[in-house]
Amino acid sequence: MKADAPAPFTADDYRARMEHAATTASDAGLAGLLVGPGPDLVWLTGYQPTAMTERLTLLRLAPGEDPVLVVPKLEAPDAEQAPGAGALTLRDWTDGQDPYGTTAPLLDKAGRYAISDSTWAMHLLGLQEQLPDSSYTAVTKALPMLRAVKDAAELERVAAAGAAADAAYEEIKKVTFAGRKETDVAADLADLLRRFGHEQVDFTVVGSGPNGANPHHEAGDRVIGHGDMVVLDFGGLMHGYGSDTTRTVHVGEPTDEERRVHDIVREAQQAGFEAVRPGVACQDIDRAARAHITDAGYGEYFIHRTGHGIGTTTHEPPYMIEGEEQPLVPGMCFSIEPGIYLPGRFGVRIEDIVTVTADGGQRLNGTDHAMAIVG
Amino acid sequence: MKADAPAPFTADDYRARMEHAATTASDAGLAGLLVGPGPDLVWLTGYQPTAMTERLTLLRLAPGEDPVLVVPKLEAPDAEQAPGAGALTLRDWTDGQDPYGTTAPLLDKAGRYAISDSTWAMHLLGLQEQLPDSSYTAVTKALPMLRAVKDAAELERVAAAGAAADAAYEEIKKVTFAGRKETDVAADLADLLRRFGHEQVDFTVVGSGPNGANPHHEAGDRVIGHGDMVVLDFGGLMHGYGSDTTRTVHVGEPTDEERRVHDIVREAQQAGFEAVRPGVACQDIDRAARAHITDAGYGEYFIHRTGHGIGTTTHEPPYMIEGEEQPLVPGMCFSIEPGIYLPGRFGVRIEDIVTVTADGGQRLNGTDHAMAIVG
Repeated sequence: MKADAPAPFTADDYRARMEHAATTASDAGLAGLLVGPGPDLVWLTGYQPTAMTERLTLLRLAPGEDPVLVVPKLEAPDAEQAPGAGALTLRDWTDGQDPYGTTAPLLDKAGRYAISDSTWAMHLLGLQEQLPDSSYTAVTKALPMLRAVKDAAELERVAAAGAAADAAYEEIKKVTFAGRKETDVAADLADLLRRFGHEQVDFTVVGSGPNGANPHHEAGDRVIGHGDMVVLDFGGLMHGYGSDTTRTVHVGEPTDEERRVHDIVREAQQAGFEAVRPGVACQDIDRAARAHITDAGYGEYFIHRTGHGIGTTTHEPPYMIEGEEQPLVPGMCFSIEPGIYLPGRFGVRIEDIVTVTADGGQRLNGTDHAMAIVG
Repeated sequence: MKADAPAPFTADDYRARMEHAATTASDAGLAGLLVGPGPDLVWLTGYQPTAMTERLTLLRLAPGEDPVLVVPKLEAPDAEQAPGAGALTLRDWTDGQDPYGTTAPLLDKAGRYAISDSTWAMHLLGLQEQLPDSSYTAVTKALPMLRAVKDAAELERVAAAGAAADAAYEEIKKVTFAGRKETDVAADLADLLRRFGHEQVDFTVVGSGPNGANPHHEAGDRVIGHGDMVVLDFGGLMHGYGSDTTRTVHVGEPTDEERRVHDIVREAQQAGFEAVRPGVACQDIDRAARAHITDAGYGEYFIHRTGHGIGTTTHEPPYMIEGEEQPLVPGMCFSIEPGIYLPGRFGVRIEDIVTVTADGGQRLNGTDHAMAIVG
């Protein structure tokens, strides 16, 4: 049932990414890039520490210099096994040493560095203390497009993750909703994602009835009833790349109002999709989807941005949001996921991952947008 | 098979913790405490966002002021359900707004704040930019003992988690090791931890033969063989509090050398334990265990600190490490886990969680330290 695994990325692939990142940082006037454990580190080196701890792990990229990965000595054997290890030098430190003292000589004392968003604040403070003349900016602020444009091997993975999520949706429509808890359907969704090849499940939102009106409700003890609208939003990682899709289903026949709201969201999603082409600003995708909902009189009930990038994480730049003027570039992958949330009553959201092509957009989710009637 | 759940913490419990934290910060000369998602936020409020995302969630504690939790608008309904929500005020921000602009008015412009270690660097940078005269220090550096001393309700939970881990160890000794992969035994351990009541499994190290000589090896494809020494180090969270225990077992009869190394580690663990009493410095626990291993000629093979605190995380202050002069206080809970790692050959580690009592220490793990022979 699982798709064939794509060929793994090699040390050469990681070397090319690290060189690209160092050049991108240099072009932005930065002395380099510092990357703690997380999706940027995985993308650049293939390395993920087995546990996130307080011990400093930090990749230093600087133009014209070899990449250096600072690691706790007791994690060095693991780091040496990382797929990108052949393209970098390890510098280890031992419990009791000051890891920032180990790192400081690798940095330009008065340099400005991009630092990965999710690096722990305590590590940034440690560096700021060691090098008071250095300065820092978040990677997604300084280099927001670093991982945004996917190459062919990455696109293959995002598409495969989307296809697996679609397969999960086709199966979940067949299960019983009425009389079961949201958490039961969520567990089914997680099982299905894994069955169709995901190695990691990140979220399985089942928002029934009024819970669907909370866009970040996960799944709770509420028993799904006949007549409920149910938001299903699920995704995770497959071969290291993300899926994220939403469909809103209904237990039994919907009311006219439920049908109308669902239609508006479906049309808004389509409007956002049709706006996708190279050179268009990210905010224009948001505007296209939002205008449709606002024109229909539900603008105040669409309370989040229209989309987010996806890659080695399920949330990353570029963001489809008012104020984001970044132009779309072929190879970008992101969600288009408008919604309407009627507090205390129900919610509707429809979401596809879309990639930018040479002359438009291509959906990486292909299941029907029409409101499925479930039992 | 699961122990009865303890009574949940109430809004009053969380209010008391937040007041204690604000006072502690004030006593340390700080303007307050800023806490992002993670174990500190769970401890202070009971709130854990359903997903860790780039959107800012931040608790602001300041002496004499009501606690405020800054949250993304679409996560506010979840935050309102947190057990500590009744003891704080929510301040939400909407996609498109600058969350640091929302937070800045809550802070003293030139104040010095402790910020939770794992808060994302991008958020710290956002605050530093908004308030250039403010300054920050990591919580574990400024207030390392904030969560270190457990009250009776917390001790009950740490003890229960330890007892469940012990029950898992008693069962894992009965499974077949020889001929199975490390990952298979690790999966058994995870199942056992869950069966005995853990809601979260954080690590299940199975380090067989040479893999045992890498102290942070998790579990791999290596097939365990007859004659292997196997390090088993496992733990997670039960009722929100951590377990962490290590025993080193042997498949079939050990050699004299294996037995000798195991004895030395066992005696070192005992020496560390016997050093525990109120007022003794953390580093003295490390010294007591390390001296025994060094005297036996294996000092260079004990390559990590002797222990770490445990509570709402499985790794937290206080650390039993050279240079840590913090005196032990009754109610502290931490690991004592010396090890000897012979590269390319095998490793031995023995670990108990210990709590400080009025006049000594008490183990919260009770399984036999003798080397179990497994099949």
